[in-house]
Amino acid sequence: MHQVIDMAGVDLLQANQAGADRNRAQFDRWGMTCLNVMSSPGAGKTVLLEKTLEALRDHLKIAVIEGDMTTQLDAERLRRCGVPVIAINTGRSCHLDAHMVAGGMHQLEREHSPEQFDLVFVENVGNLVCPAEFEVGEHAKVALLSLTEGEDKPLKYPVMFREADCLLVSKLDLAPYLEVDLGQIEANVRQLNPNASIIPLSAKSGEGLELWFEWVQQQVRRVRSQQPQVVL
Amino acid sequence: MHQVIDMAGVDLLQANQAGADRNRAQFDRWGMTCLNVMSSPGAGKTVLLEKTLEALRDHLKIAVIEGDMTTQLDAERLRRCGVPVIAINTGRSCHLDAHMVAGGMHQLEREHSPEQFDLVFVENVGNLVCPAEFEVGEHAKVALLSLTEGEDKPLKYPVMFREADCLLVSKLDLAPYLEVDLGQIEANVRQLNPNASIIPLSAKSGEGLELWFEWVQQQVRRVRSQQPQVVL
Repeated sequence: MHQVIDMAGVDLLQANQAGADRNRAQFDRWGMTCLNVMSSPGAGKTVLLEKTLEALRDHLKIAVIEGDMTTQLDAERLRRCGVPVIAINTGRSCHLDAHMVAGGMHQLEREHSPEQFDLVFVENVGNLVCPAEFEVGEHAKVALLSLTEGEDKPLKYPVMFREADCLLVSKLDLAPYLEVDLGQIEANVRQLNPNASIIPLSAKSGEGLELWFEWVQQQVRRVRSQQPQVVL
Repeated sequence: MHQVIDMAGVDLLQANQAGADRNRAQFDRWGMTCLNVMSSPGAGKTVLLEKTLEALRDHLKIAVIEGDMTTQLDAERLRRCGVPVIAINTGRSCHLDAHMVAGGMHQLEREHSPEQFDLVFVENVGNLVCPAEFEVGEHAKVALLSLTEGEDKPLKYPVMFREADCLLVSKLDLAPYLEVDLGQIEANVRQLNPNASIIPLSAKSGEGLELWFEWVQQQVRRVRSQQPQVVL
């Protein structure tokens, strides 16, 4: 979080929230569920999405809005999974905001029929601080914490762990080589957030992935049951 | 980077730069070298500083300015190494800025004789994006990239890797368990920054630490040779 009041005295967080609410209403009209995926750089968001697209693309119609500061590297990786990927370069911005995601939604609308999609993943910029404060219109927030980052991170970066609906503890395959206590990570998260789903997993070994896939599908069912039913 | 112009139209980055220059001039008057240590959360800044303080505290008089959003966890760890640690809680801010560090310098002045110190480490908030844009008065920037974060991070977060005077590739002990190409990390950094020192190391195994300790001592010698000699 840097400056939150702009030159004209506008509260940027409040303006962002209004934009996020508009985005969510649009996703609801399209009958789409939006999940905002956030973590530190290198915690494994992109490889998790690769595995998720491979596993779920025959059951759900999925798109991705991919946020990166400068490159198209992650967008290219995910396009290889055969789903539409809208790439947003944030330039010097350390997070996606509602306005940027609205731009991605307009592109989705121009290039595809958005009503066909069940689910859109927003992959945020790798940053454990700022993305948690800028809602983009998601129905649920997913945070990844790599096991390699250590037990203390929920306490040191509380906003992300307080806001998350689902916490994925990634790189579980490295557990034998680390002196990190998974139980302590869970206890630290629970201090801040009693209700989040906590799923330890490894995109490499596959451990825990089925629980994550089931959580994603539950979200789609939950959100759909709350969305207005459009009679075509 | 969020908003860089404040309500009164002040360019925040320019104002920060002026504050950083003032801080650096004060460090120079004190005869102190300041190193700004930055990385993603969990890349190993604090454990590296623990090892560094243990190795160098008999040769150099060292203090630490420790930036954390909310807790004193890292400050307490470093105090156990027997050096003065000034803790700065940044609250919702995702980086230290020159103004915050100036506050830490005032505290150092009140509680200690700052002229006695050779070296101060500033441990920044864990964030691979914003700290690189906000100079705090350092004589050199040190960036850590954990090997677990992958080869692509220099390309995806270019500001940090362009600005760094020294890049430490940490957690080298995990190399046998990762499919990460250290040579590719180095090549990606070199695209952006031909001159940075690149030191792969592991605080756990000790590999590479001697090179890092030597780099730190070189910086102290380099900076001291450029500082005005105060006749007492």
